[in-house]
Amino acid sequence: MANATLVNESINAIRTLSMDMVQKANSGHPGLPMGAAPMAYTLWQNHLVHNPKNPAWFNRDRFVLSAGHGSALLYSLLHLTGYDLSIDDLKNFRQMGSKTPGHPERLDTPGVEVTTGPLGQGFANGVGMAMAEAFLAANFNTDDHAVIDHYTYAIVSDGDVVEGVAMEAAAIAGNLKLGKLVYLYDQNHITLAASANVSMSENVAARFEALNWHVQTINGMDVDEVNAAIEAAKAVTDKPSIICAQTTIGFGSPKKAGTFGAHGSPLGPDEVKATKENLGIPTEPDFYVPDSAAAHFAEAVTNGADAEAAWNETFAAYKAANPELAAALELAIAGKVPADWDAEIPTWSAGDKAVSTRKASGDVIAAFWKHVPTFLGGSADLNGSTLTIMKGGGDFGDPSFNDLETQGTVGDSWSYAGRNVHYGIREHGMGAIVNGMAAHGGVIPFGSTFHVFTDYLRPSIRLAALSHLHSIFVMTHDSIAVGEDGPTHEPIEQTMSLRLIPGLTVLRPADANETAAAWRHAIESSTASLLVLSRQDLAVLDTSGAKGNLENGAYILSDSEGDPDVVLIATGSEVELAVMAQSELASRGVQARVVSMPSWELFRAQSPDYKASVLGAVGTPRLSVEAGITTGWAEWTGSNGAHVGMTTYGLSAPGKEVLKYFGFTKEHVAAVALQLLGREAEAEELDAPYREGHAAGKPMDGADGHS
Amino acid sequence: MANATLVNESINAIRTLSMDMVQKANSGHPGLPMGAAPMAYTLWQNHLVHNPKNPAWFNRDRFVLSAGHGSALLYSLLHLTGYDLSIDDLKNFRQMGSKTPGHPERLDTPGVEVTTGPLGQGFANGVGMAMAEAFLAANFNTDDHAVIDHYTYAIVSDGDVVEGVAMEAAAIAGNLKLGKLVYLYDQNHITLAASANVSMSENVAARFEALNWHVQTINGMDVDEVNAAIEAAKAVTDKPSIICAQTTIGFGSPKKAGTFGAHGSPLGPDEVKATKENLGIPTEPDFYVPDSAAAHFAEAVTNGADAEAAWNETFAAYKAANPELAAALELAIAGKVPADWDAEIPTWSAGDKAVSTRKASGDVIAAFWKHVPTFLGGSADLNGSTLTIMKGGGDFGDPSFNDLETQGTVGDSWSYAGRNVHYGIREHGMGAIVNGMAAHGGVIPFGSTFHVFTDYLRPSIRLAALSHLHSIFVMTHDSIAVGEDGPTHEPIEQTMSLRLIPGLTVLRPADANETAAAWRHAIESSTASLLVLSRQDLAVLDTSGAKGNLENGAYILSDSEGDPDVVLIATGSEVELAVMAQSELASRGVQARVVSMPSWELFRAQSPDYKASVLGAVGTPRLSVEAGITTGWAEWTGSNGAHVGMTTYGLSAPGKEVLKYFGFTKEHVAAVALQLLGREAEAEELDAPYREGHAAGKPMDGADGHS
Repeated sequence: MANATLVNESINAIRTLSMDMVQKANSGHPGLPMGAAPMAYTLWQNHLVHNPKNPAWFNRDRFVLSAGHGSALLYSLLHLTGYDLSIDDLKNFRQMGSKTPGHPERLDTPGVEVTTGPLGQGFANGVGMAMAEAFLAANFNTDDHAVIDHYTYAIVSDGDVVEGVAMEAAAIAGNLKLGKLVYLYDQNHITLAASANVSMSENVAARFEALNWHVQTINGMDVDEVNAAIEAAKAVTDKPSIICAQTTIGFGSPKKAGTFGAHGSPLGPDEVKATKENLGIPTEPDFYVPDSAAAHFAEAVTNGADAEAAWNETFAAYKAANPELAAALELAIAGKVPADWDAEIPTWSAGDKAVSTRKASGDVIAAFWKHVPTFLGGSADLNGSTLTIMKGGGDFGDPSFNDLETQGTVGDSWSYAGRNVHYGIREHGMGAIVNGMAAHGGVIPFGSTFHVFTDYLRPSIRLAALSHLHSIFVMTHDSIAVGEDGPTHEPIEQTMSLRLIPGLTVLRPADANETAAAWRHAIESSTASLLVLSRQDLAVLDTSGAKGNLENGAYILSDSEGDPDVVLIATGSEVELAVMAQSELASRGVQARVVSMPSWELFRAQSPDYKASVLGAVGTPRLSVEAGITTGWAEWTGSNGAHVGMTTYGLSAPGKEVLKYFGFTKEHVAAVALQLLGREAEAEELDAPYREGHAAGKPMDGADGHS
Repeated sequence: MANATLVNESINAIRTLSMDMVQKANSGHPGLPMGAAPMAYTLWQNHLVHNPKNPAWFNRDRFVLSAGHGSALLYSLLHLTGYDLSIDDLKNFRQMGSKTPGHPERLDTPGVEVTTGPLGQGFANGVGMAMAEAFLAANFNTDDHAVIDHYTYAIVSDGDVVEGVAMEAAAIAGNLKLGKLVYLYDQNHITLAASANVSMSENVAARFEALNWHVQTINGMDVDEVNAAIEAAKAVTDKPSIICAQTTIGFGSPKKAGTFGAHGSPLGPDEVKATKENLGIPTEPDFYVPDSAAAHFAEAVTNGADAEAAWNETFAAYKAANPELAAALELAIAGKVPADWDAEIPTWSAGDKAVSTRKASGDVIAAFWKHVPTFLGGSADLNGSTLTIMKGGGDFGDPSFNDLETQGTVGDSWSYAGRNVHYGIREHGMGAIVNGMAAHGGVIPFGSTFHVFTDYLRPSIRLAALSHLHSIFVMTHDSIAVGEDGPTHEPIEQTMSLRLIPGLTVLRPADANETAAAWRHAIESSTASLLVLSRQDLAVLDTSGAKGNLENGAYILSDSEGDPDVVLIATGSEVELAVMAQSELASRGVQARVVSMPSWELFRAQSPDYKASVLGAVGTPRLSVEAGITTGWAEWTGSNGAHVGMTTYGLSAPGKEVLKYFGFTKEHVAAVALQLLGREAEAEELDAPYREGHAAGKPMDGADGHS
């Protein structure tokens, strides 16, 4: 450890930069950096293995500031330890185009591992990072060479230990015995709007102990205690660690220390001055860092270069001894998949037995997982339903689990090399963990649940998209065809609501072959994808007349003879229905084109000419067919179009009956098309069974079941 | 207690009905009812105070089956204890139009308190119910008469104790010392797809102890132990109770007991037979209930009638002694608000100081809360930001909190009569608790947070809408105008995604007066509303030319002279902008109409004629102006329309700069309108500053910032 004066100067340098950043921006959260500076200093100076000049060095320790509102702390550390973040960048805190946005954002700032701010997410991301590390270490290290060997650290706040997403992830971390996860809990007893005791009387330490964490409670303002606690945490290898560090928010501020007034607002120029005086910091100039402290922090540059150099040597020796393993690891680190990874993915032919897209997805996974050695994931306790298991891929977890009597595992023995992750009934934690694994890199992670429960992990899906993570989400049971489970389990608005998230690619394949294409896209993409899959069996479509494929987002699956009288645009399970309606219409002399539109995002990226070639000339009547909410479809059908879709919740009854009740029959689709074409009488006749059935069924809430 | 034979026959009657229901439907979850039957029997027969012939009796104990997949258990109990649920209803389990849907649905079945199925929600609903009970008791009971005095019970499952939403609510319940909350945890060590030990190694009992719950662990198959545990739980009045009841899933099934095979699939006809034989139940006929058991369960009818009669007497005496209090309570129970509740709500005049709609909302709340004595709620640790506090309304909580040193309270002293709920940083728990309070009835509850965090409680918002609950959600900081906090805190897609939820009324008021109207709607509605409010100040709009108001959903705020050349449809903070653009266009000889559209749902409910009168003749060029995702707007603008909105995430910079960068200026809006009218050259000239500014700013992800 450095001498006490230097330590103090260094900690105060973090505080100075942080409070000055917030003050100059006149916006931000000064309190956390002031109180957490001692522990952040101790962690970064004495423990964190990183190379400021190469933030991408793969074996670095990962550091997450889960309490993203304290971003000034992180930016101060990055600047002081030599990352490409200048004092001018700090002065541009929270300004247009700066590298120092209000909350840490992945890819915006060198050294920022994950985008944080929504509380609890960073906590859970860290768990995912530690899982990725354990997985890669188990798969790639050898007895002679530990090429993957690092810690994952985080600073977490009160919000992070009460948010459900974090508690779910904490339970998973404890269950998985992630010994290389070390969290510093900034227990300052103050939340944004109150003292914590207003809403938190729980015993946080006991809570984490119950989750099988190693727990210490210390004085977070004392660097020696912090240092010893981190040492002790690292020494415990079969449990994740949390250090409940008692701190003072806004430390040093004569008027605001220990109050929620220090949490989310600048201290004000007078209080900044008073605080500096109180802490023995020169009040001029702003952003003052003593040379001694600057030099001390700069040791990180040398240390980092040495650490990476040593690792490079290790890796070279590893590569010499294990060329194939090393090549596979290098490929994975580069975010690439092996050539021919998809060679064994089956194709299906029209006329083959109908198969649900979730089942087809399972078959596709079975065909590729062995060729993508860093693909791992699982479901939120729905393996038998989402069909995402990799049989023979092993269960991800501590080998001691082999001593348990378990049910529902892959049964190939537990180890950290296992591909199958058992997230438990924790959708949100799963989502954020998938993101953490993706942010770690070197792995292609996925999570799976029922489509209706995408709502549970929506905040994590948004963050995957926002921060350009290669996260994959596999959502099955995608419509009212779920049937008996009823409206709580029948997605209506989920698919459309996911299409609203910028940067997410939503893929709703129409059959087994589109499912294979969807997986190809999801694996080869570098950003987030979400697959929407059916519970029920679907015919394998005849693509002999197709003009395009899934990568086009939408394409003509079956064209009309000549210009279409009407264009039927369908997705997923409703494409088959549209094809049947096309025949029904043909028998009545109506030329219908069927467009399969598995992905709005991919279609939007097409050229205007291509789009026009698919949608037909301006003014062509168009009909959307999707067992989901109709809002949004006017974008493609135009305002003179029509929709066969949902405007209410579904109901509990066998799936086929539910589909029929809501008009997902070829007759009803054809009737709506005829109506659109002004052939009212025919439409009415054809639609009589629907109208009668609908009237006889359960009275629905609100409007009619289609519009 | 009844004799052992009768108890056994009665428990087996529950099992018989449950497994036969599932078998007949060939769909459902038999395992939970088989294992939980003893504790359910004990609770319902010995403790639950309810009146099967009047499920609406207000002072009944509330019972929640949080593990909604075990619905067969609940339907069996309701049938056996005399609710209006016949054996034929049970035979129609999971069929079209039945009163016995796959998961319990509020309003579909007499005696079902809340819609459950999505795990964790029912757990949290129960917390809300107990809060409502405590609140009403504190406000309305007198020393002489306890007219509100009941327990809230639930059966919860593994999923319910690992889902984040439940853990958040559990923390709130512990913090609030809700002594009349008693949960039976069906700890059967089996989840849907596995044994629980695959994903759960936590010590659940210790976890709840850390949350200040009273915890017991018992043999759940032993009715005496269950009975004693419930007695003990009721005796602890300053803590919520959870009874960790060790049970055997699928009890009695020779092949499936204790396995996940019993969880989510019918046992099969042979195994049903074998199970009945094993349990000593006659194998014929189906749905067999011995007369002795039927008579025993039917005691609930007499007991219920007696309980309600006794309460009616108490209430009569209470009413005689406290006529005003009683009248207020009766009104609240009827779901009504006092006449003139809104008399003091201010009105604002055009030209008044600009005011954010969150601030206006605070002013409105301040004006009405005293007149709506059963209105309560708060925020997820954002009181100073969402401005939903009721000053003088007291803090909701145990009076012992008055001994704590607290910050951020209303400071009017803690009691269960307090109006201000401190949910802590637990958005999802808050959402489900609001629903539980609404389901309890007698209160009008609300929850509040930043609009971007609606994603965190979306599953609860959906359930509020699905189950017709009078829940109110108040979401502030509703756009990129949030500014410095950056994309993690800037809602883009949230407003549109909420419009996709059937049964929810989304209200995005344009100014202070629309905010008052939105609150009027939310309070007087019987279903769920969500207010979307600005952080930034907004001008008070001139409504002198308005043709309609918020209740119309959309209305002409400022009309063109004669038929409009273009219709500008705006919501919330962008209405002011549309009005400015109207002037800009007028100066160029373009007649623009400005439509304020605070609520799509209310507008959809208008007559076709009214809608046409607002939107203008078919073919009129229309432009949407909303600082949110543009997907969906084609419904109102038509495919020949245009949008000033967002297609990407926002960025971190001062709010005004962010708005300008993304084109939320009168010049850009006018330019897009001119472009729509084919006046390209003028548009280009007017739009030059936007294009330059946009090019100079931070490179955005994906497409351009408007479309």
